[in-house]
Amino acid sequence: MTTRSAAVLESPPVGTSMRALVKESAAPGAAIREVPIPAPGPGEVLVRVEAASMCGTDVHIERWNEWAQENFGPPPMIFGHEMAGRIVDRGPGATRIPVGTLVAAETHIVDWTCYQCRTNRSYVCQNLRILGVHRPGSFAQYVAIPEVNAWPSEGLAPEIAALQEPLGNAVFASLVEDVAGQTAVVTGCGPIGLMSIAVLKKAGARAVYATDINPERRAMAERMGADLVLDAADDVPGTLRELTHGDGVDVVVEMSGSSAALHQGFAAVTNGGRVSLLGTHSVPATIDLSQEVIFKGIRIYGITGRRLFDTWYRASALLQEGLDLTPIITHRLPLSEYGKAFDLVASGHAGKIVLLPQEEQR
Amino acid sequence: MTTRSAAVLESPPVGTSMRALVKESAAPGAAIREVPIPAPGPGEVLVRVEAASMCGTDVHIERWNEWAQENFGPPPMIFGHEMAGRIVDRGPGATRIPVGTLVAAETHIVDWTCYQCRTNRSYVCQNLRILGVHRPGSFAQYVAIPEVNAWPSEGLAPEIAALQEPLGNAVFASLVEDVAGQTAVVTGCGPIGLMSIAVLKKAGARAVYATDINPERRAMAERMGADLVLDAADDVPGTLRELTHGDGVDVVVEMSGSSAALHQGFAAVTNGGRVSLLGTHSVPATIDLSQEVIFKGIRIYGITGRRLFDTWYRASALLQEGLDLTPIITHRLPLSEYGKAFDLVASGHAGKIVLLPQEEQR
Amino acid sequence: MTTRSAAVLESPPVGTSMRALVKESAAPGAAIREVPIPAPGPGEVLVRVEAASMCGTDVHIERWNEWAQENFGPPPMIFGHEMAGRIVDRGPGATRIPVGTLVAAETHIVDWTCYQCRTNRSYVCQNLRILGVHRPGSFAQYVAIPEVNAWPSEGLAPEIAALQEPLGNAVFASLVEDVAGQTAVVTGCGPIGLMSIAVLKKAGARAVYATDINPERRAMAERMGADLVLDAADDVPGTLRELTHGDGVDVVVEMSGSSAALHQGFAAVTNGGRVSLLGTHSVPATIDLSQEVIFKGIRIYGITGRRLFDTWYRASALLQEGLDLTPIITHRLPLSEYGKAFDLVASGHAGKIVLLPQEEQR
Amino acid sequence: MTTRSAAVLESPPVGTSMRALVKESAAPGAAIREVPIPAPGPGEVLVRVEAASMCGTDVHIERWNEWAQENFGPPPMIFGHEMAGRIVDRGPGATRIPVGTLVAAETHIVDWTCYQCRTNRSYVCQNLRILGVHRPGSFAQYVAIPEVNAWPSEGLAPEIAALQEPLGNAVFASLVEDVAGQTAVVTGCGPIGLMSIAVLKKAGARAVYATDINPERRAMAERMGADLVLDAADDVPGTLRELTHGDGVDVVVEMSGSSAALHQGFAAVTNGGRVSLLGTHSVPATIDLSQEVIFKGIRIYGITGRRLFDTWYRASALLQEGLDLTPIITHRLPLSEYGKAFDLVASGHAGKIVLLPQEEQR
Repeated sequence: MTTRSAAVLESPPVGTSMRALVKESAAPGAAIREVPIPAPGPGEVLVRVEAASMCGTDVHIERWNEWAQENFGPPPMIFGHEMAGRIVDRGPGATRIPVGTLVAAETHIVDWTCYQCRTNRSYVCQNLRILGVHRPGSFAQYVAIPEVNAWPSEGLAPEIAALQEPLGNAVFASLVEDVAGQTAVVTGCGPIGLMSIAVLKKAGARAVYATDINPERRAMAERMGADLVLDAADDVPGTLRELTHGDGVDVVVEMSGSSAALHQGFAAVTNGGRVSLLGTHSVPATIDLSQEVIFKGIRIYGITGRRLFDTWYRASALLQEGLDLTPIITHRLPLSEYGKAFDLVASGHAGKIVLLPQEEQR
Repeated sequence: MTTRSAAVLESPPVGTSMRALVKESAAPGAAIREVPIPAPGPGEVLVRVEAASMCGTDVHIERWNEWAQENFGPPPMIFGHEMAGRIVDRGPGATRIPVGTLVAAETHIVDWTCYQCRTNRSYVCQNLRILGVHRPGSFAQYVAIPEVNAWPSEGLAPEIAALQEPLGNAVFASLVEDVAGQTAVVTGCGPIGLMSIAVLKKAGARAVYATDINPERRAMAERMGADLVLDAADDVPGTLRELTHGDGVDVVVEMSGSSAALHQGFAAVTNGGRVSLLGTHSVPATIDLSQEVIFKGIRIYGITGRRLFDTWYRASALLQEGLDLTPIITHRLPLSEYGKAFDLVASGHAGKIVLLPQEEQR
Repeated sequence: MTTRSAAVLESPPVGTSMRALVKESAAPGAAIREVPIPAPGPGEVLVRVEAASMCGTDVHIERWNEWAQENFGPPPMIFGHEMAGRIVDRGPGATRIPVGTLVAAETHIVDWTCYQCRTNRSYVCQNLRILGVHRPGSFAQYVAIPEVNAWPSEGLAPEIAALQEPLGNAVFASLVEDVAGQTAVVTGCGPIGLMSIAVLKKAGARAVYATDINPERRAMAERMGADLVLDAADDVPGTLRELTHGDGVDVVVEMSGSSAALHQGFAAVTNGGRVSLLGTHSVPATIDLSQEVIFKGIRIYGITGRRLFDTWYRASALLQEGLDLTPIITHRLPLSEYGKAFDLVASGHAGKIVLLPQEEQR
Repeated sequence: MTTRSAAVLESPPVGTSMRALVKESAAPGAAIREVPIPAPGPGEVLVRVEAASMCGTDVHIERWNEWAQENFGPPPMIFGHEMAGRIVDRGPGATRIPVGTLVAAETHIVDWTCYQCRTNRSYVCQNLRILGVHRPGSFAQYVAIPEVNAWPSEGLAPEIAALQEPLGNAVFASLVEDVAGQTAVVTGCGPIGLMSIAVLKKAGARAVYATDINPERRAMAERMGADLVLDAADDVPGTLRELTHGDGVDVVVEMSGSSAALHQGFAAVTNGGRVSLLGTHSVPATIDLSQEVIFKGIRIYGITGRRLFDTWYRASALLQEGLDLTPIITHRLPLSEYGKAFDLVASGHAGKIVLLPQEEQR
């Protein structure tokens, strides 16, 4: 591995092969395989993965749903993208972050030259490539990422460092406008919704309400600090109107991708309020634009990714302020137990699951 | 009319009855009637109407569609709201604007005390009442309005002064974010869409495109200064992508209320761009939120009314800068020819129609 | 007092005279006098004052400094403006807030019709009149204020309700831009500076630093939750640069009116950061605009008053969230001990002093 | 010059030496010298300079004032930074912009990794290096710049393309907030002030006023479209108040660096208005912060550089819309006549001077 000659001296010896979770073909399933350790290309760093958390997207890829068929790969390719680990090698031109540094990954690899990138909107880069979707991912012992995408995270536990990526989603969606002193509802208490609850509280929201149909998730929402958690099957708008003296909530953060939750959000939001949409919808939504949007004079933000890197600064700061993500992590499993992990996420009985690619080596 | 005793000395003599267009019952139709001249209540001014332009809402009321059945009245009541005229009398406490002043009307009568009004969002007041919808309107020789809703307009022709109300809609929708140097498309070239074209050009948009299915409206859009006008039946997104070197347009101002136009707008807008929705939809729209909104990272503004009174300052200023609305006015008719006016609007063969309530007196 | 006849039935009997602190002539000093209870005019409410906190402005008036000579009165007039109490009577047209309600006062009485008021900037109304400066104030057993200026505050202790007015200054200055995840320094730990510390923390600032030359105030700053309190006589910019890894702080909230603090703030703020100026300067400041402002690309906000009423909603919400102002109140005195209060404020050995106009009656 | 081997085949033959204007030592003066053509380093392009316009900074460097002594060089070094020309060669990794393309230069060379660069504030990069100040500049037949700093400008005359850099200053300062429908004054009609006049008009300002003490510049301001041009020696605030019915102007764009102009701007701006400061001050300014800033509730923006690259998109768009900079160019001179150019700028009898480095070769 001659291209890594200079840097390798600074780092622990790296072998030539590694274990990784590979999507082998255009069909459901995945498998642990022994594959070559990637060499960091120009401007890239090689990271020894300490924690790789699982995202709904990973389940889509494993189950090979329509989205995965259209976007992933092509197989065979390693997937996974939320991760943290230590830099063990650096490609040519990657000189800024020292070998040995704990880093997390901004998983959107962007071109930095399109109209969007040059106007501070890289999260919707015209040539966006996502780690673990369009290039080999982090469900592996090692992963190569652009140095510019590596976010130094010294002082954080690797599993928390890995969660900064979805935390960034929560921060972007929740704080796209200032929330200090405002009332908010988070509809959908999956991991990113749970993070939003904590983010909104930390940023001074007056009251943060949360909804879900799943009682386990509602219990987690309470642990994350929600002022009140509602069963999404109940009259959410009515209750929220009552709690806000008839005004409605200032902010809706829609994290479920559910059409029912969306309409509850529109009904609950105050006139002239704000709705952030992050939960992705697998089927089109039917919206009464006149009554739900126009006559109410609301603003809707479609949210994807994170600001590079304003959101990372904010997310890091909130962690430093004491925002605690550990209640969201329900399972920590060695990478080899990936099957159990996918089943847990699909079952809805899990918060965040962290895979540990190095564990079998111990 | 003793309540007007003090003020009447300052103004030209006003008789006791006037002609007005009255919605007489909860059914289609309307009729010119001789009715008492209203007395201005506390804080109100009485205006002698010089020009009363017609809005699509007025047609809804005349035709008595579902919206009108739910919102108007109750009948019998005068309707009409876009107007300009001279103050001829003032009720108790209305002392700011001198009798004789030409004024237009902000047609949203708000409570000034609800959460929305006290946070600079009066256009979505919780107790909103609209002139000519919830209280007697301006298709009449005289109308009483709150002094706070009267916008002094000296120097403007009355018909242009009356058009400031819908111009305010266009200004609010178009300039809710800065447009200098941006590309924009206005979908729907009814009167407010036509105004938006001119507003966007005046505010420094780099290019303003417009779409409509109606060739007469497309011709008017060209006269209003659109850089290119497209037939909405053609491949609008494809053409706009090409014109913007693949980037898409920065701004979509949706004025049609058509679902087809909405989807063209979503397809044409650049990633991270902005969509303003003003055209009201009579049926729910089916939106692929993931593809059309979330993954594109766009912002959507529901627009109704006008900012009180930021928008009025802006609209007035744009008229002073030379923004020309006269090409939009296609017909000027005495109030008595209201039937012809409603038919023209319904037929789609008209731009803006101005009714002249005083004409028969001449 | 015939003008109060209708309303008086709803309220506890009110006598005809009251005790008040009066600035009697254009010279230093003030005196407790028995004066007629004011009658609430049209749109006004009469408030029985439960708590009247003291502001630096009140000391200027008592001491009769240059500012007071130019702005106050004319004498004889009651002064004082920060206050809370219960509505005991209502003038004609004041029908919204029930008699008996605990209210605080927005002390800026504005015309609602000038360019500033009509564009959501009432705090700089062209015809601004301040309670206790341009019209009779609240160092009295009763005060009449416009109903629109009365902020219902049920559930708060009167002394806390009274403090909402300066809290609004702190909120406006601190949160004029979003602070979640940002570092901030408050220069000057008088009462409003102390409030800012708590506001910034509550709104999610990552770290809030504070400076003062007065050790008593520095001790209070610590009690209000500052992450670190610095002696303003030390190398503040150097320390803040070090604490922020060389970047500088994101936000400076200048509350001292001291030129030295101002320059420390400019030196400490990060490039492209934000400075809010609220502390008033009695002498002109000498600023190297090129080095301190332009080449650093910073934004400076001159802050006065509060947004009507966005800031009040925010301030109320922060109190509901648990923001605690009680550590700021160092003294509670009957109105008759006003002399002691003025001396304490002038000496710098006090935080906030609350005068209790009803106390002698007990 | 082996490092340019691959690219040189695509481009016209380039010799090995060129003429350039060199600051030879730490003393006043400069000289035309024959020097080696620079080789483009990694990520750089080599540009054959077609037009190099002169900035006040260049005069500072030639005259060797205090600022130059502290910032420039070290000598000997070529200076000059505003420029346009065609790419004739590309260093390793510079593959995006084809050889032969006309480009202008963003003259701020930034590190892209500091806090400011990673939060969309590259114009105040912590490791900012300026072309022609900290590295060899463009008063030469060829200059090497980072490809990321090259702004493709096909279709523009080279002299106009070169002016995009100062135009960007004008755009950033003028449009840092939306100006459509607002009144503005530009204080100081040097080249960037003159550009601001045109920018503000194009962006829909209702009225653009301008001031200068120099009658030649005032005449140019009229040609750029100012609605009224005032002698800065007269009562500017009084006149502007009168023109705005007592309100004052919404926007002040301070381009002079003169303390007198600054105070006129503060006096003229409406309460709650906005002041942009770009003109650099050679001596500290004495400001009555209470009266001029705080009680007026204004916002002040320190402006330097341009947003990378939002401002460039905007500036390009405004040129496409027809914004005409040619009236600002008063002289076009071969590079050899640099002495005359410096004298003209210093004398105040010039607008923009464009040097033509290739001219003697014809």
